[in-house]
Amino acid sequence: MEVSSQSLAVGLDTVWVLLCAALVFLMEGGFAFLEAGFIRAKNSVNIVMKVFTDTTVGMLAYWLIGFSVMFGLDHSGLWGSGGYMVSGSFSHLGLRIPICAFWLFQAAFAMALASIVSGAVAERMKFFPYMVYTFCAAAFVYPIAGHWVWNSGGWLAQMGMKDFAGSAVVHAVGGWSALAAVMVLGPRRGKFNEDGSVNVIPAHNLHLAFLGAFILWFGWFGFNPGSSLSGLDGNIASIAMTTNLSAAAGGFMGMVFTRLKYGKADPSMAMNGALAGLVAITGGTAYVTPGSSVIIGLIAGILVVLAVEFFDKVKADDPVGAIAVHGVNGVWGALALGLFAKDGGLFYGGGVKFLSIQALGVVSVSVWAFGLTFLIFSLLKATVGIRVTADEEMEGLDLSEHGIPAYCGLVVSPINIQESTEIGGQSLQASLINTPGFSLANTNE
Amino acid sequence: MEVSSQSLAVGLDTVWVLLCAALVFLMEGGFAFLEAGFIRAKNSVNIVMKVFTDTTVGMLAYWLIGFSVMFGLDHSGLWGSGGYMVSGSFSHLGLRIPICAFWLFQAAFAMALASIVSGAVAERMKFFPYMVYTFCAAAFVYPIAGHWVWNSGGWLAQMGMKDFAGSAVVHAVGGWSALAAVMVLGPRRGKFNEDGSVNVIPAHNLHLAFLGAFILWFGWFGFNPGSSLSGLDGNIASIAMTTNLSAAAGGFMGMVFTRLKYGKADPSMAMNGALAGLVAITGGTAYVTPGSSVIIGLIAGILVVLAVEFFDKVKADDPVGAIAVHGVNGVWGALALGLFAKDGGLFYGGGVKFLSIQALGVVSVSVWAFGLTFLIFSLLKATVGIRVTADEEMEGLDLSEHGIPAYCGLVVSPINIQESTEIGGQSLQASLINTPGFSLANTNE
Amino acid sequence: MEVSSQSLAVGLDTVWVLLCAALVFLMEGGFAFLEAGFIRAKNSVNIVMKVFTDTTVGMLAYWLIGFSVMFGLDHSGLWGSGGYMVSGSFSHLGLRIPICAFWLFQAAFAMALASIVSGAVAERMKFFPYMVYTFCAAAFVYPIAGHWVWNSGGWLAQMGMKDFAGSAVVHAVGGWSALAAVMVLGPRRGKFNEDGSVNVIPAHNLHLAFLGAFILWFGWFGFNPGSSLSGLDGNIASIAMTTNLSAAAGGFMGMVFTRLKYGKADPSMAMNGALAGLVAITGGTAYVTPGSSVIIGLIAGILVVLAVEFFDKVKADDPVGAIAVHGVNGVWGALALGLFAKDGGLFYGGGVKFLSIQALGVVSVSVWAFGLTFLIFSLLKATVGIRVTADEEMEGLDLSEHGIPAYCGLVVSPINIQESTEIGGQSLQASLINTPGFSLANTNE
Repeated sequence: MEVSSQSLAVGLDTVWVLLCAALVFLMEGGFAFLEAGFIRAKNSVNIVMKVFTDTTVGMLAYWLIGFSVMFGLDHSGLWGSGGYMVSGSFSHLGLRIPICAFWLFQAAFAMALASIVSGAVAERMKFFPYMVYTFCAAAFVYPIAGHWVWNSGGWLAQMGMKDFAGSAVVHAVGGWSALAAVMVLGPRRGKFNEDGSVNVIPAHNLHLAFLGAFILWFGWFGFNPGSSLSGLDGNIASIAMTTNLSAAAGGFMGMVFTRLKYGKADPSMAMNGALAGLVAITGGTAYVTPGSSVIIGLIAGILVVLAVEFFDKVKADDPVGAIAVHGVNGVWGALALGLFAKDGGLFYGGGVKFLSIQALGVVSVSVWAFGLTFLIFSLLKATVGIRVTADEEMEGLDLSEHGIPAYCGLVVSPINIQESTEIGGQSLQASLINTPGFSLANTNE
Repeated sequence: MEVSSQSLAVGLDTVWVLLCAALVFLMEGGFAFLEAGFIRAKNSVNIVMKVFTDTTVGMLAYWLIGFSVMFGLDHSGLWGSGGYMVSGSFSHLGLRIPICAFWLFQAAFAMALASIVSGAVAERMKFFPYMVYTFCAAAFVYPIAGHWVWNSGGWLAQMGMKDFAGSAVVHAVGGWSALAAVMVLGPRRGKFNEDGSVNVIPAHNLHLAFLGAFILWFGWFGFNPGSSLSGLDGNIASIAMTTNLSAAAGGFMGMVFTRLKYGKADPSMAMNGALAGLVAITGGTAYVTPGSSVIIGLIAGILVVLAVEFFDKVKADDPVGAIAVHGVNGVWGALALGLFAKDGGLFYGGGVKFLSIQALGVVSVSVWAFGLTFLIFSLLKATVGIRVTADEEMEGLDLSEHGIPAYCGLVVSPINIQESTEIGGQSLQASLINTPGFSLANTNE
Repeated sequence: MEVSSQSLAVGLDTVWVLLCAALVFLMEGGFAFLEAGFIRAKNSVNIVMKVFTDTTVGMLAYWLIGFSVMFGLDHSGLWGSGGYMVSGSFSHLGLRIPICAFWLFQAAFAMALASIVSGAVAERMKFFPYMVYTFCAAAFVYPIAGHWVWNSGGWLAQMGMKDFAGSAVVHAVGGWSALAAVMVLGPRRGKFNEDGSVNVIPAHNLHLAFLGAFILWFGWFGFNPGSSLSGLDGNIASIAMTTNLSAAAGGFMGMVFTRLKYGKADPSMAMNGALAGLVAITGGTAYVTPGSSVIIGLIAGILVVLAVEFFDKVKADDPVGAIAVHGVNGVWGALALGLFAKDGGLFYGGGVKFLSIQALGVVSVSVWAFGLTFLIFSLLKATVGIRVTADEEMEGLDLSEHGIPAYCGLVVSPINIQESTEIGGQSLQASLINTPGFSLANTNE
């Protein structure tokens, strides 16, 4: 059987994009465990359930509406329409791969966008309104920003903005959405003291968080190189290399900078440094040299540490550092491309014009994302409410929202231990027996 | 160096199948952690060891015998033979990919089959007879059912049954094997009360279970699209899309249906709903529309919740819901293809003939799997015994079978706390010190 | 658009190598969790941070220097130079894939090499000198050994040594480096008693270890088949098959041999058996039959159990068994190729010449790795010091080096429980409150 070179090209590109889509899909697991590990055990199932909502509701929303808004026929450079549920023709996109492969890859990006926000609202947001938000994020917030930059008719695309795999479109949009959400929602109880000081609410399981970090990094092997949409793109190896070098540089700097600043190499900043490096290189990965990617990553590793401090100082309570990782470094990534692009970057003799377009673009999508998310959260707050009660927050969202703790048979509640002066078996026993829905008595006879 | 288009086609298909095989292989980790997370800590290493047995003994059994029984030369449509240890010619299969690639992909399916059963027999089955069972499952139970449907000479294949990636061949066979195993083995002590009521034996680590669920979903990117055996199959993108939409619909429904029915969005049913959606789409993924896949997934998400209730009611103790997920939804998937197939489905004007063949097929493989597994377990019960003693079940299989607990240095035994009225350090200490093989005293000096 | 067959070949090979590089990269997560699970909780974050150092510092070192030393222009068969930071021409390598893809794949190998050592020095080595060691390992120790065998100008390559994916170059080098490190560093406090007896220091989380083992096995789907550097290599399917069969055989034997020897099927030896099988087949995977790979794996599963015993007996304290898995079985793999190679192996009528070259080769790289690592560790010991203080070792490296425990809110300190006769809440409370940097008091109001 003779196979045409056209069939081979389509087949190779399809295989490439589907496998990269699988890697990006797995990043949902990465978000889930990174976030769950960084927060307290009592809310950790709830955050995984929220990421699971991104994966399910988010995917369905992007199928029903979001993909059409993003990649449907353009209206005035602002939004798209038509072909809902991925029906009809998308021939205007000029794709070589099947539309189903393109949709799946993009759907995984839409889920990731929603999951960036999930971490910032951890430990206090109700489950049902989060489902509504996820639907809106995957159907409108992200697709419209994406339309501006990635639909050839979008107004920022027309101006010449570049954002290869989404420092601005995915990460800045996600990060500043997260800030809006946090501002409407308010901080966790006990995070900020009346005297202005800040309490550290410790990560409950760093191995779970590291698992998330390794999965996310692994997923970026699909996120950035896969955005080429073609295995025949001669640039994919270079993209994979700059992506990894920036991640390594960011992670290295996260360790070294905290060692210098605080005296200890901080694990959470090792992870967030690597992720910041990944976020920052995402926009420019195809356009910069390996050396530039290392510089971009090193700066990202510093920025993320300073940004986490800053948002604590202004009392924006972001339990996992999503605003610092994705918002701040998404902006840095878009600007870095304006500085380091081999073709047109300021440091390569390109003048300020391209840099200005990058700045305008990332500010525009950020303002859009912040504004619409602020509106959505405010509407939800005024109607169904977005925050659990004080009692529920004390008890933990795992029990109040899902009726089940993350761990059972492992003693997970030192709080009971601390609150009791006469401590020991009684309170430990209480902390387990009070878990609703359990009937442990007969399970061992 | 000139490369022929034939070489390129073979290379592309081989790369595709090998990478998909890697994804399916990783599903063993998914089964291990899903099952370990859903059960009590004291038996959780044992269940991982059983899945590890599927991965090792199962792979060797499929190499020695199973592959030949399934894909060897056909005898009367019932079984195959010849080419043991993947030697000799398999040219009758008409494959473009190397036989080693085909074997590896199929071997990963055989392991998955065995792992479906491992969850259902958790917390009470002895390790050695499980090894024997796994050998039989990968050498005979699964290959014969597979021969009927996937070997072109098989009697169900000859009748026109379709089962793209195995709703019937893998999942119904696994699920009804699990029911047979559970019936011979009996329920865990303490699961059912004399008054007919049912005790909930809680999941010990939901993050471990979610890790398993994310890995399994990720693995399905290989399981279904890889079953094309060709990267040049123009349908692989559509297969990946229907697979994911059904999973999302099932997971969404698992959350919503439990919220409506029980008042809480249940995490275990979120996971099992997504897995049910994956199981149900597996047979028809290449033949139905995206819209149909969403409907199939939504129904799967309801079925799995009702089925878990049902099997509890009839006192079939399945600690992880394997019968509900794989058995019930494997049947649903085979029938759904008869209803929704674009070419020949009842809802597409195809009449009842194709649906009847699907029904006959899935009933046949299910009855075969149930019957042979019942026989194997009964023989094992009558000879070496299949159930640990009451004392071992109380102590936990991790210590009795493997001499080591899952967690050490984490306090894992609230049961001791509950059973003692005068609680505290003594019993905690006891629970750790009684762990055989430990010598903690000197490790910190 | 017409696509040339040359472009298609380059594209297919690039896609293959990049996706395999992603799998090998993920092995860093595998090392991290395998090692963390096998040791005590109090040092488990530190070991993950060390693997993270391999991933970041190791990658940067291999970019700056290591790649040039390994694959730069040859000097007398001993080392390479030129093209630092992957600049300049590497046309002498005659690669079809882009140099960036080749670098990334090789960089992931360099990180793996360093991570082999990290496990052996767990629970007692300081963090900063480890960073220095990692830089040296990825810049010099590994690249020079690699140059000898894998650079066409290397002296062992010239002699005809074969080592397909690195039983000798990666695993023997890593394993005997680990022995040197352990000898300079000394055993953990409390491991060996004055009467010569050995204490078991138990694994703190076997599920974490199994996660690592599954990830490592999964990564080997890239490690061995990807070493072909071409999706058009007709041998990749056979490579994937022999790799998996050897792993299954090793894991099976790890379970059975410990059952026979100690009475229980040991989980850690199930894992280490499978890994030993993988290590042992890595050198010969492309050159032996499936049947031979099973034999190689079965022997590896026995060797690893005996070797762990042996190194305990000679008081080389290797907390995770890295020397037994990688050192011993790396040597076994290089020799096994001399025995079982279809073309030139002793058992296939090839005489002792090829086997002798293999023996010379693996001894040479092992002696080199042992010697240079011994020197590096000795220099570090004499200058900055390599070992934490006795107090820090008692407290755990997570707190002393990183200021944070792996788990918080889970009670992780049974030692306090054991050390107190009057046990209960006070000491539990103390164990949590003493964790520096925590301010739990207000987090629940």
